[in-house]
Amino acid sequence: MLSLNEIAFFLNPRSVALVGVTTRTEPEAYNPLDPLLKTGFSGRIYAVNPKGGEVLGQTLYHSILELPEVVDLAVISTPREAVLKVVKECVAKEIKAIIVITQGFADGDKEGQMMQAEMNKIIQGTRTRLIGPNTIGVINAFTDFHTVFVDFHRQINHNCMISQSGIFLVGSADFTAGIGLGIDLGNAADVEVSDLLEYLGNNAQIKVINLHIEGIKNGRRFMELARKVGRKKPIFCLKTGRSEVGAKAVMSHSGSLAGEDHVFEAAFKQSGIIRVQDVEEMRSFNKTFLTYQSISGPRIAVLTISGGAGIATADAMSKYNLKLAQFSPSTVSRLKKVFPDWMEVINPADIWPAGMMHGYRHIYSLSLEIVLSDHQVDAVFCVTPAYLHPAQDKLLNISDLLNQAAAKHPEKPVAVWVYGPYRQEFASILEKPGRIVAYHSPERAMAALGALYHYHHRIKPALETTEEKEPLIAFNDQKITRVKNFFYTNRKQNNAMINFPELGELLQAYGIPTVSTKEAYNLAEALAAAEEIGYPVVMKVLSSEVTHKSDVGGVYLNLNSPALVEKAFKKMKTLELNQELKIQVLGVLIQPYVTNTDSIEVILGSKKDPVFGPVLVYGLGGIYTELFKDIAFRIAPINRTQALAMIQETRSYQLLLGFRGKPPLDLEALVNSLLNLGQMVVNHPEIQELDLNPLLVMPKGVLALDARLRLD
Amino acid sequence: MLSLNEIAFFLNPRSVALVGVTTRTEPEAYNPLDPLLKTGFSGRIYAVNPKGGEVLGQTLYHSILELPEVVDLAVISTPREAVLKVVKECVAKEIKAIIVITQGFADGDKEGQMMQAEMNKIIQGTRTRLIGPNTIGVINAFTDFHTVFVDFHRQINHNCMISQSGIFLVGSADFTAGIGLGIDLGNAADVEVSDLLEYLGNNAQIKVINLHIEGIKNGRRFMELARKVGRKKPIFCLKTGRSEVGAKAVMSHSGSLAGEDHVFEAAFKQSGIIRVQDVEEMRSFNKTFLTYQSISGPRIAVLTISGGAGIATADAMSKYNLKLAQFSPSTVSRLKKVFPDWMEVINPADIWPAGMMHGYRHIYSLSLEIVLSDHQVDAVFCVTPAYLHPAQDKLLNISDLLNQAAAKHPEKPVAVWVYGPYRQEFASILEKPGRIVAYHSPERAMAALGALYHYHHRIKPALETTEEKEPLIAFNDQKITRVKNFFYTNRKQNNAMINFPELGELLQAYGIPTVSTKEAYNLAEALAAAEEIGYPVVMKVLSSEVTHKSDVGGVYLNLNSPALVEKAFKKMKTLELNQELKIQVLGVLIQPYVTNTDSIEVILGSKKDPVFGPVLVYGLGGIYTELFKDIAFRIAPINRTQALAMIQETRSYQLLLGFRGKPPLDLEALVNSLLNLGQMVVNHPEIQELDLNPLLVMPKGVLALDARLRLD
Repeated sequence: MLSLNEIAFFLNPRSVALVGVTTRTEPEAYNPLDPLLKTGFSGRIYAVNPKGGEVLGQTLYHSILELPEVVDLAVISTPREAVLKVVKECVAKEIKAIIVITQGFADGDKEGQMMQAEMNKIIQGTRTRLIGPNTIGVINAFTDFHTVFVDFHRQINHNCMISQSGIFLVGSADFTAGIGLGIDLGNAADVEVSDLLEYLGNNAQIKVINLHIEGIKNGRRFMELARKVGRKKPIFCLKTGRSEVGAKAVMSHSGSLAGEDHVFEAAFKQSGIIRVQDVEEMRSFNKTFLTYQSISGPRIAVLTISGGAGIATADAMSKYNLKLAQFSPSTVSRLKKVFPDWMEVINPADIWPAGMMHGYRHIYSLSLEIVLSDHQVDAVFCVTPAYLHPAQDKLLNISDLLNQAAAKHPEKPVAVWVYGPYRQEFASILEKPGRIVAYHSPERAMAALGALYHYHHRIKPALETTEEKEPLIAFNDQKITRVKNFFYTNRKQNNAMINFPELGELLQAYGIPTVSTKEAYNLAEALAAAEEIGYPVVMKVLSSEVTHKSDVGGVYLNLNSPALVEKAFKKMKTLELNQELKIQVLGVLIQPYVTNTDSIEVILGSKKDPVFGPVLVYGLGGIYTELFKDIAFRIAPINRTQALAMIQETRSYQLLLGFRGKPPLDLEALVNSLLNLGQMVVNHPEIQELDLNPLLVMPKGVLALDARLRLD
Repeated sequence: MLSLNEIAFFLNPRSVALVGVTTRTEPEAYNPLDPLLKTGFSGRIYAVNPKGGEVLGQTLYHSILELPEVVDLAVISTPREAVLKVVKECVAKEIKAIIVITQGFADGDKEGQMMQAEMNKIIQGTRTRLIGPNTIGVINAFTDFHTVFVDFHRQINHNCMISQSGIFLVGSADFTAGIGLGIDLGNAADVEVSDLLEYLGNNAQIKVINLHIEGIKNGRRFMELARKVGRKKPIFCLKTGRSEVGAKAVMSHSGSLAGEDHVFEAAFKQSGIIRVQDVEEMRSFNKTFLTYQSISGPRIAVLTISGGAGIATADAMSKYNLKLAQFSPSTVSRLKKVFPDWMEVINPADIWPAGMMHGYRHIYSLSLEIVLSDHQVDAVFCVTPAYLHPAQDKLLNISDLLNQAAAKHPEKPVAVWVYGPYRQEFASILEKPGRIVAYHSPERAMAALGALYHYHHRIKPALETTEEKEPLIAFNDQKITRVKNFFYTNRKQNNAMINFPELGELLQAYGIPTVSTKEAYNLAEALAAAEEIGYPVVMKVLSSEVTHKSDVGGVYLNLNSPALVEKAFKKMKTLELNQELKIQVLGVLIQPYVTNTDSIEVILGSKKDPVFGPVLVYGLGGIYTELFKDIAFRIAPINRTQALAMIQETRSYQLLLGFRGKPPLDLEALVNSLLNLGQMVVNHPEIQELDLNPLLVMPKGVLALDARLRLD
């Protein structure tokens, strides 16, 4: 994490050296001095170019070593070949902050990748921090400082943007309705998103944080910081590289690893980050959260000039978990007085007929006051047209009335959909006092109000709840020894893949019941094992090569006599003869045949992600896992609430509740298993992959019927 | 369907009577005469008001009976109480077209609903047709005729809009980038969407048809016409009232039945209608289809100023079934010459570094020409900024170059995302020559190009394919008699619900194999039936009250001895003792226990929809139907292609192909069953509901294990 001081060097430097300033000044020269001089930055500016001389009235120093002071920030835009030398000089001068604008490092060829690694080495262990390379740098609209090398329209706002692409800074008026602080991390060789989160969370000028992420390095640190910051202000994230082709393109753009999208999705969920789908949603959410303090509930009143628009709004509400407010009796009776006799007062309220009778402005203003005073209404959505230019429109222009109402009821969002040819012009007028957002459609409005509700009533409370730190598993010395032995032995024997029965040791130590399993290497052993376990039994092939035993015919269920065990054993041995399978049958496993039509089979697992570490997976077992992708992911470890949420996220959750006449299943035991598994994979980072497949969830208890673990 | 003449009376009248014109002229009077006079309509206009006198320089006739001629069109905006009288007068005068603007009919109270019914009665059997009530009427921008009673900005375009809400006409500059013909059907008491489709399909001025539908009356007729028209031009539909709350609101807005959304979804699919999600998509699709003739394939080249934007575009492409073009070797080598050495030439192509070296305008123009000439590229998506006002931006404004390139390669769409504070200004310049669409985001652009591709390469060819009219079932006299008897007998006996074994008769006649089923009313009969069928058998409860037999414990599988049959029979009788179930056990059904771990159980069914008639349903059987909603719907009958598409639409389709080592199942037999079922429900409209649940799909053949049919 960057300290406050370190951040100040980047965002609020007292002095800055622009290294690589060209002597050319025409627009195509992209002379970085020009736009900075224009914006009226009050700090000291030095320009550096080995040629020396003068440009735009500024002396050109031959090198950074020549400067009369140690500047706070060096901005390097030299050709690629010269960058490392300048970085070295900066470090030698003990300059605290470097921004490398130059492209062609991890975003370029092999040589560039090596140069970036070298760059990291140069600053390692020093007090110099570096943003970039391949960045447009920073914008601090509050102090007029920026490193953008093209002219651009600046629009200040109480938000910030950390991105991996310069367009989000320079295009911020479009994407985020302006910007307060912008940092383009580029390839994020040194400073990355987590380094800045806490600072932005504590910065009182910033009300909303925007992230554009292609990839990150330390997922857990990022989550931890996001959870902390999310309690104070919303974090919106546009994560790109979600598709396969997109992820490939990320590598050549910023040299980042895009990561698996479902893992990011889980991480965002767990850390309260609101994922925006595109730049239009980003802008709409920024405006919403910067305009409306909060929303007290999900109940929306709709005042509309058109019944059709009211219906579209109702549809959108359902989609975004908002509700049509049920008007209070007083609202109904007050509106009834002005509505035509034939018209029922309902929500959405079509005020057009009343408006035609009594005057549009009068009725709109009256209705607005009535519904805003209704204690069963949390926000009002207003539909009104822009058929003529607002200056010409004496009849249907209610911008002033809407803003008066919004001012009078600051606790209830007044959201507006103004449609028609003069939408833009009306929107500007409506939004100017900063009390109203004029949306482009009912869908956009409901998506934004839905997010506002979700943040204040779901995300924030969840982040504010202290994590339950239950000591899940009571570990006595004996258990600790068993677990230690398990890993020691398997490591020593170089067992990359561990199955039953060995794996049972570990699972049981972590409180996950496993079916009793006996190994048998010949028929006699198999028969003895079956006898001991008791009929009926299950026989499974024992072979290091097989992942899905049943796919190769390596599982026999319900063997209820020695004769059947013998037959199955002989068949099992013939698997070796199948040329296609190429497996060696070491022996068989014998287990009791646990059958219960009331139970269901689920899978529980964990897989190590390069960015986030162990990721837990839960879903319905059997072929349905693959078929329906009814699976939930979470970054481990999780708490009880999260474990339950994870299970509830799947459609198959209904099966656990007792589906169509079946008894409810042991949800608590399942939650415990998930919690224990999460604990285990965090405790033992050497676990690369672990699958309990299937885990039988019974009316009472759970039982792992098969499992496998891969060490890294 | 309206004849050409009838439509002309509405859209292109030579004379029009405005009935109910007020003597007031201030804006709040909504005097319909005023806006019509302003737009310069060249036909004869008569104003009618019982008070008489004069307004806006026009004589006010006391009644329509007083007019000097029989007008082509009467537009009624009197108070509700006066409407029916005027309609009667119009009919008496043999006026061919009436538009009723007045509200408060099916959209209002009980009285209004009765008045609308009365209105229909008045025109029934006459040569008068009626649009409305509760409508804003029509706009014909080509002839300057309209019935809109407020001032509005008109913007002409080669599209049309049939809606159930006036806002889509008056706000068309916003929703559809202008409008050529607009018809607001309001409550659609008489004229409905199907009446106009064919005319709009044949109208050469109209290139794109837009529909806003809340509900329709005759679904089949609508589909048939849409299929015909869709071959010539795209039909976009915004169907509202999709949610439960939305559907409720529809009833009070236009008095329509919103219908079940999944049924509409199926109907749209089958008739090639492109469903738009909201008004923003509607505008974007209108612009796209009116600007680009077609697109030759799904391969998109991306030229971008920002790698980050390229990635977002690649993500969006995957979502909308487009592909990143693979540049031809010639493109790669030509671009390589201007790209920096460290940079690989890939798609998306980030042209910024090359632009900085050789000039942005030069490189953009060169790259554009190179990729547009690439035969492996079907369209180009360009990302370029709007950081400064276009008039000021000498550096990055490439609007002229983009339009030149688009003009030179008219067969390949040049789509643009221009972002930044001056987006609107740039977009206007870019779109003016009518060759380019400037989108609001990469997602919007890809959604629109995806729809363009889908229409030209999927929808149109499918609509142009002649339907296969296979004589599916060879019906001989004997079969016909059997089927006739089946319905006759069941009708006569007042059997609302028909189960196995009776239902087997009908299914077999339609070529759907059913499991042999015997009824037994006492133990002796049950034992005899089991003996005859052969062990193991299945026993099911026979009771008219039970829908899901297994939910109440009314199914016993795998009974492999007389003793087990006896035990099951006795247990079955105890179901009557269960107070909660309240069922009477009439007897039991005995069937062979057909078991095959390779087979799967699916459901096949049909349900009569009030708008579309019999709707077929197909999905995975068992509890998964409910759990995963893995179900496909189609309006019956369907052809072979549609039956296959319906099955392929479900995720469980993979199970039929042979999932994880299992053999493939008999897809052909399943398709045949679907086709036969479709035929059956069309032949026998008295079938209200029919469920084959489950139908066993085996490696060879299918077999209905249970079924029920409800007559209406």
